[in-house]
Amino acid sequence: MIYTITLNPAIDRLLYLEEVMESRKTNRIIDVAYDIGGKGTHGSYTISKLGVDNVALGFMGDLNADKFQQVLTSKKITHDFCLVKGQATRECYIVIDRNTSGTTMLTEKGLTIPRHSVERFLDMLKTRVNSNDMVLIAGSLPTGFELPDLEKMIKILKEAGCFIACDLSGETLKMAVELNVDFIKPNEFELTDLNEDGKDQIDFLRSLNNKIKYVVASLGEDGSYCIYNQEVYKVIPPKVKELNDTGAGDCFVGAFLAGVSKGYSIKETIRLASACAASKVTHSDSSTFDLEDVEKLKTQVEINRI
Amino acid sequence: MIYTITLNPAIDRLLYLEEVMESRKTNRIIDVAYDIGGKGTHGSYTISKLGVDNVALGFMGDLNADKFQQVLTSKKITHDFCLVKGQATRECYIVIDRNTSGTTMLTEKGLTIPRHSVERFLDMLKTRVNSNDMVLIAGSLPTGFELPDLEKMIKILKEAGCFIACDLSGETLKMAVELNVDFIKPNEFELTDLNEDGKDQIDFLRSLNNKIKYVVASLGEDGSYCIYNQEVYKVIPPKVKELNDTGAGDCFVGAFLAGVSKGYSIKETIRLASACAASKVTHSDSSTFDLEDVEKLKTQVEINRI
Repeated sequence: MIYTITLNPAIDRLLYLEEVMESRKTNRIIDVAYDIGGKGTHGSYTISKLGVDNVALGFMGDLNADKFQQVLTSKKITHDFCLVKGQATRECYIVIDRNTSGTTMLTEKGLTIPRHSVERFLDMLKTRVNSNDMVLIAGSLPTGFELPDLEKMIKILKEAGCFIACDLSGETLKMAVELNVDFIKPNEFELTDLNEDGKDQIDFLRSLNNKIKYVVASLGEDGSYCIYNQEVYKVIPPKVKELNDTGAGDCFVGAFLAGVSKGYSIKETIRLASACAASKVTHSDSSTFDLEDVEKLKTQVEINRI
Repeated sequence: MIYTITLNPAIDRLLYLEEVMESRKTNRIIDVAYDIGGKGTHGSYTISKLGVDNVALGFMGDLNADKFQQVLTSKKITHDFCLVKGQATRECYIVIDRNTSGTTMLTEKGLTIPRHSVERFLDMLKTRVNSNDMVLIAGSLPTGFELPDLEKMIKILKEAGCFIACDLSGETLKMAVELNVDFIKPNEFELTDLNEDGKDQIDFLRSLNNKIKYVVASLGEDGSYCIYNQEVYKVIPPKVKELNDTGAGDCFVGAFLAGVSKGYSIKETIRLASACAASKVTHSDSSTFDLEDVEKLKTQVEINRI
């Protein structure tokens, strides 16, 4: 089974405008849609859509649990979130206008996880996860679930012997690297941050790959590097008409894990992940991609071994 | 009894930011609050707070009626909204940052009122309103409640013989003027629009007052004119530290009607309305004002008969 862990999820409210938003004015909303935010859940959506069973885990507040679960169900995400009493899952507002590719996000702070809920969640993982499973940890940490808790969680998963993928940043990404997880996806800035001795980029990626099975380094418009078995693949994604790039990274990670779980070769896996992400950016929301488009786009992914 | 009519109300979600909102960025929300929008309900809030009984009327969607009524109750607004099946009362988003006085509004379109609900609402008014009552009609018309329906509604109220106050704009304001209601509050632009022959402003206001008992012309920072019994009063509001001027006009109108219903003199009424509106702009939301501040501010309202 694949599990995704979203510790600080959100109910995303997408507010579509006809015109570009003007500050200090009244802007008319022409459409409203809902999505689940918080990265891990986007991974689950992608994995499910690619036909691979998975369960989304994490925390949710009980005050708006109905709404939260309603959106998860509408996105066909199988889930088993740990309920936090007396709190609401944060809502985030994403303002999108029809004419531009940029979105403006307004994000609430999110849950404060009480100590006993952290313990309950970690205990649940201990009994649930085994060595055949894959686990994706993605997104930010909520208040109350601190860096030592993340360390504890990754160690529990390592003990279970499962595949551990981490889409994290900053201190949490450093923690994932130190603990030798199986998959990381730093961007250029995070890579520079990790590369404390200022090594040559490719050499540094290879050194990360000594301990981490899959290293994907996203380079923005320049595509990405994928390092596996000490081989470096430069990946150029297909050219598409970009509407909204929010969620493209989450889609890439979800599809990558789906590919690995299906036993695809590294090149097939990269091709699938890159095509899914490319399809995603042609849609205005944060998660939608199209399976027919993916089949076409897969042939347009350029992969060169360096 | 005073009734306020809000035909297209809204659940206002106030999103407070620490910093100025930046487009195409992630902006952190530090606090969220709720209010009822749609003008008439703000009038009700003001009237209630000044100790005068009143009932807020209008339409609400049944899909989020719980939330809507919860906010009305939290604002201590007595209400009897007509339920529209299968629809949601619109939600509006008001982005406020701590440092500036401007707010950015994102507004949904609102209800579509079916024909039978329009008829039901007008029938309810016929049986409910009598000659001792005051009725405030404020805000925009929802889809399905068109200009001829407004005409029908005002004529029903005129037949009942009640006091009719209209805080309307554009075509609906013109309709109110044609039907000789008892109170209007055009702003400078609306006044220019109404004054088709380009008469001298004061002369034009006096001519409106021939048929309309109370005419208040708001002039923005320059204060306002109030015309009653052919006397023109120039009103200069107290100087205050402005945080948010949204809702100040609604507050003025509510307080004005409360003053009239209490039998205050025209000068006392103006003084109360102007002080309430001045207190309102010192608060960051769309309706709050402070009764203690009002008492102090009343002494600072400047009223000059022209």
